[in-house]
Amino acid sequence: MSDTSLLETFPNPKPGRDYRIEHTFPEFTSVCPKTGQPDFATVVVTYIAGETCLELKGLKLYLNGYRDEGVFYEKVTNLILDDLAAACKPRWMKVETRWGARGGISSVLVAEYREGA
Amino acid sequence: MSDTSLLETFPNPKPGRDYRIEHTFPEFTSVCPKTGQPDFATVVVTYIAGETCLELKGLKLYLNGYRDEGVFYEKVTNLILDDLAAACKPRWMKVETRWGARGGISSVLVAEYREGA
Amino acid sequence: MSDTSLLETFPNPKPGRDYRIEHTFPEFTSVCPKTGQPDFATVVVTYIAGETCLELKGLKLYLNGYRDEGVFYEKVTNLILDDLAAACKPRWMKVETRWGARGGISSVLVAEYREGA
Amino acid sequence: MSDTSLLETFPNPKPGRDYRIEHTFPEFTSVCPKTGQPDFATVVVTYIAGETCLELKGLKLYLNGYRDEGVFYEKVTNLILDDLAAACKPRWMKVETRWGARGGISSVLVAEYREGA
Amino acid sequence: MSDTSLLETFPNPKPGRDYRIEHTFPEFTSVCPKTGQPDFATVVVTYIAGETCLELKGLKLYLNGYRDEGVFYEKVTNLILDDLAAACKPRWMKVETRWGARGGISSVLVAEYREGA
Amino acid sequence: MSDTSLLETFPNPKPGRDYRIEHTFPEFTSVCPKTGQPDFATVVVTYIAGETCLELKGLKLYLNGYRDEGVFYEKVTNLILDDLAAACKPRWMKVETRWGARGGISSVLVAEYREGA
Amino acid sequence: MSDTSLLETFPNPKPGRDYRIEHTFPEFTSVCPKTGQPDFATVVVTYIAGETCLELKGLKLYLNGYRDEGVFYEKVTNLILDDLAAACKPRWMKVETRWGARGGISSVLVAEYREGA
Amino acid sequence: MSDTSLLETFPNPKPGRDYRIEHTFPEFTSVCPKTGQPDFATVVVTYIAGETCLELKGLKLYLNGYRDEGVFYEKVTNLILDDLAAACKPRWMKVETRWGARGGISSVLVAEYREGA
Amino acid sequence: MSDTSLLETFPNPKPGRDYRIEHTFPEFTSVCPKTGQPDFATVVVTYIAGETCLELKGLKLYLNGYRDEGVFYEKVTNLILDDLAAACKPRWMKVETRWGARGGISSVLVAEYREGA
Amino acid sequence: MSDTSLLETFPNPKPGRDYRIEHTFPEFTSVCPKTGQPDFATVVVTYIAGETCLELKGLKLYLNGYRDEGVFYEKVTNLILDDLAAACKPRWMKVETRWGARGGISSVLVAEYREGA
Repeated sequence: MSDTSLLETFPNPKPGRDYRIEHTFPEFTSVCPKTGQPDFATVVVTYIAGETCLELKGLKLYLNGYRDEGVFYEKVTNLILDDLAAACKPRWMKVETRWGARGGISSVLVAEYREGA
Repeated sequence: MSDTSLLETFPNPKPGRDYRIEHTFPEFTSVCPKTGQPDFATVVVTYIAGETCLELKGLKLYLNGYRDEGVFYEKVTNLILDDLAAACKPRWMKVETRWGARGGISSVLVAEYREGA
Repeated sequence: MSDTSLLETFPNPKPGRDYRIEHTFPEFTSVCPKTGQPDFATVVVTYIAGETCLELKGLKLYLNGYRDEGVFYEKVTNLILDDLAAACKPRWMKVETRWGARGGISSVLVAEYREGA
Repeated sequence: MSDTSLLETFPNPKPGRDYRIEHTFPEFTSVCPKTGQPDFATVVVTYIAGETCLELKGLKLYLNGYRDEGVFYEKVTNLILDDLAAACKPRWMKVETRWGARGGISSVLVAEYREGA
Repeated sequence: MSDTSLLETFPNPKPGRDYRIEHTFPEFTSVCPKTGQPDFATVVVTYIAGETCLELKGLKLYLNGYRDEGVFYEKVTNLILDDLAAACKPRWMKVETRWGARGGISSVLVAEYREGA
Repeated sequence: MSDTSLLETFPNPKPGRDYRIEHTFPEFTSVCPKTGQPDFATVVVTYIAGETCLELKGLKLYLNGYRDEGVFYEKVTNLILDDLAAACKPRWMKVETRWGARGGISSVLVAEYREGA
Repeated sequence: MSDTSLLETFPNPKPGRDYRIEHTFPEFTSVCPKTGQPDFATVVVTYIAGETCLELKGLKLYLNGYRDEGVFYEKVTNLILDDLAAACKPRWMKVETRWGARGGISSVLVAEYREGA
Repeated sequence: MSDTSLLETFPNPKPGRDYRIEHTFPEFTSVCPKTGQPDFATVVVTYIAGETCLELKGLKLYLNGYRDEGVFYEKVTNLILDDLAAACKPRWMKVETRWGARGGISSVLVAEYREGA
Repeated sequence: MSDTSLLETFPNPKPGRDYRIEHTFPEFTSVCPKTGQPDFATVVVTYIAGETCLELKGLKLYLNGYRDEGVFYEKVTNLILDDLAAACKPRWMKVETRWGARGGISSVLVAEYREGA
Repeated sequence: MSDTSLLETFPNPKPGRDYRIEHTFPEFTSVCPKTGQPDFATVVVTYIAGETCLELKGLKLYLNGYRDEGVFYEKVTNLILDDLAAACKPRWMKVETRWGARGGISSVLVAEYREGA
């Protein structure tokens, strides 16, 4: 639901080696579609690049784009994974979202993508 | 021993992908059936959804339902697993209960459920 | 709102010296009078005894007595201080209650009593 | 810049005693008026009540009201203090805002109000 | 060397499922058989129950029974494992003892038992 | 109740300067006089020496001497302070005992002695 | 030795109240004038503003300006304090520099400025 | 982009055994090629030596050589691995770089080299 | 380079079971053979005993024997492993040395021995 | 007992301001004069300089000079303070030594010097 055209990539400087890249963004916020109350999360994106790498500034702007979106934890976690994987076509990618407590329950969601799977 | 009708589910927004959902509830309390003294635990529910996901508010109300129940650690851990698995029919689920010290001994119990097992 | 007759005292073994006693009880629970939802707190009682000291078992039973009481943070903190001070007549006493998050806000309350004040 | 009519109070249950109340809200967000980028902070409100206490739900809604406001750290910290002090007329109040890093610099601001000062 | 008749068991409420039970006892003490000086340890017992589970009160009394025993780390770790396994006949059990520093060296011992092995 | 003749002192190498000495002993144990159950504490002794300093080995043996003594927290804290102050005649001394949880309540006691007071 | 013209200020939004502002910059680096090796520090600037506040971007650029400067801990700490105080004319200011270990010794320096002192 | 002639090696004192060597360098800095702003990282080099080991002083000087280099995270991580592996011909080597937050996003990169792969 | 005759062993009290023994010695020091400066490390010895176990006092004296030895990290780690394995003939043994920072780089070395390998 | 001629000073770059300098040296070792066993400590030197500051390299060499000295905690703490104060003539100085456990007791000593006192 965020604008994927914000995402930018650059050529992987070492495409012949499978190395791991992990970006942690502690300031994600969206809105609960049921209550309208804000949700807050840390988003961790880990991947093994294919031909391209994710540029940091675009990644930040893309994640900021959820600020006014009403979306469930389960949906947004998969959506971020789908959008980022579509943008940079990694060999493997994992998106982890760690949510602050809502009603006394804190939650962590983890989804993975594998090239060709 | 809690009311399973409190549990609610919603459709899994990404049923085609095996992703992990973890909910941590640090404010569980029940009663020791031997001494009548209150017990306190953190309950962690982790699962891979099938067709449906557990709704958070219902999960909280269900767990609050043990407040006046006299039940042993071993029984309540398995009971929560059985009830939650019956409610949302996950591919895999794990319930971990971490109990505050009683008589100087603190305890952790972990039970798992696997679809079709 | 808990039964103060549960509180017991024993003679201060060193009444001529002002020494500090601190008891920490991490498993306090009461009920929110507005929502009916359970509240959880750590209660810390610190005091300088006069002629008598608080017995631990009675203190625990007294604090457990709030389990079904609907009471605001501000009221219960002052009530515990008043009840404990009345029971053991200390030279000085402090009650601190540290509450788990409710609606994303966690709270700490601190009230003090001074002999003759 | 948030709606102060959201703030609600209730009578101080122990007006004759100076006791300390502290509420910590880890999920405050506003917008940088220069860059338009979101800012994130933990807001800690500590006070000694006069005749009334701050109700938690209204405090949360009031703080959530800054979500779309473009405001500097220095201004919003003083503004929150002014609004809360006007709403509940405390004997003493302190507002502390702890901001996540911006440009590699993280900041903490602390302002105090004293009755009659 | 402690009295195994202190150990009590109760029927496993879910014998058809392999779930893990862990009890941590931070206040174990015995005596060094060479120097006569007291030793202090945290004892962690983890097991998968067979037909019966270990009752907590008896476990505590059994472990307290080593208070005056002169026994080496290596021997007491295996002895606790043998006694507990004999008492509750688990499918699997692990005993870990973590000892405070003696002569500047702190030690951890871990022994496992497997049904039928 | 421990043997004070175990305590040894040596001349303060810098009696003309008020400097602070602090010894932390994490392995103190005694017995609850009511239940007969063992109690465990960390004992911290802090002092400004007069003419003599406490020798470490004797301090350890003295503290070990409470292993079989049935004594309340309040009494043993003051007793240790009295015994140590009598042995080395400090200008100032503080004894702090930090007790493991009993019945879910953990306790800290602090007593001070001042020369000539 | 850094360019003070990089520093910018803006009007204090609440000049009538003495409130505290603290900025922490964990990525300061300069060069040891004796060995030519790089030094690394966290710089913490705390102040009570007078008529103006320090703008964050300029503060960052100013601190980055020491990257190639050979300067001792003692000198640079006082220099930063002098430059920042001259730029924003605070009522009070403190600069703390926390240096990574050099030759196994880590250091912290703290200097304060007071208006009119 | 740093001078690999700074790297020195010495004979592996135990070439017949595969043992692990890990060096952690918390004070790495380079420059962002896009913004010109400094970047800061902790670099962890782990390897199993072949015939030679990396000498510490040369490793430090080599890593310091990136201080003025404009280079992306992805490139510098692989470059360090390539240079170090070429210098000491290990059986296996891993380079991990942990970067301080830039634009609110902190990053970790991990690349591995295997002899003959 | 330390005196292996200081090492003493005693019969394994449970030779029929493969259990793990771990001893941590945080106060190891030797001398850098290049600079003559002291090095400091924590040494962790983990093993599965064969017929004999390592006695703690002898282990301490043996490790203290490196105090005046000039020896590289890589050599001393393997030497300790060789000496201890020769002394007690374990089924498996691991020696880990964790060194304080030298020139800003802290190091960890891990070597393993396996019976018959 | 260490060679004070190793200590070097340099002119205080800001003698007109009372600012605080703190150096932490975690790798101090000496020898127990009674048992001959090594002792280990972290030494923290804090001071307000007069005309001169302590040079770091000399401080390190001076502290390393205690490696073979048999000296009690109480004596060495005061000796270091006396030697450093004599070398740099500070307005105020504090030496804190934090010793690893000996016989299960860990110790902290703190001595202060004040100009003209």
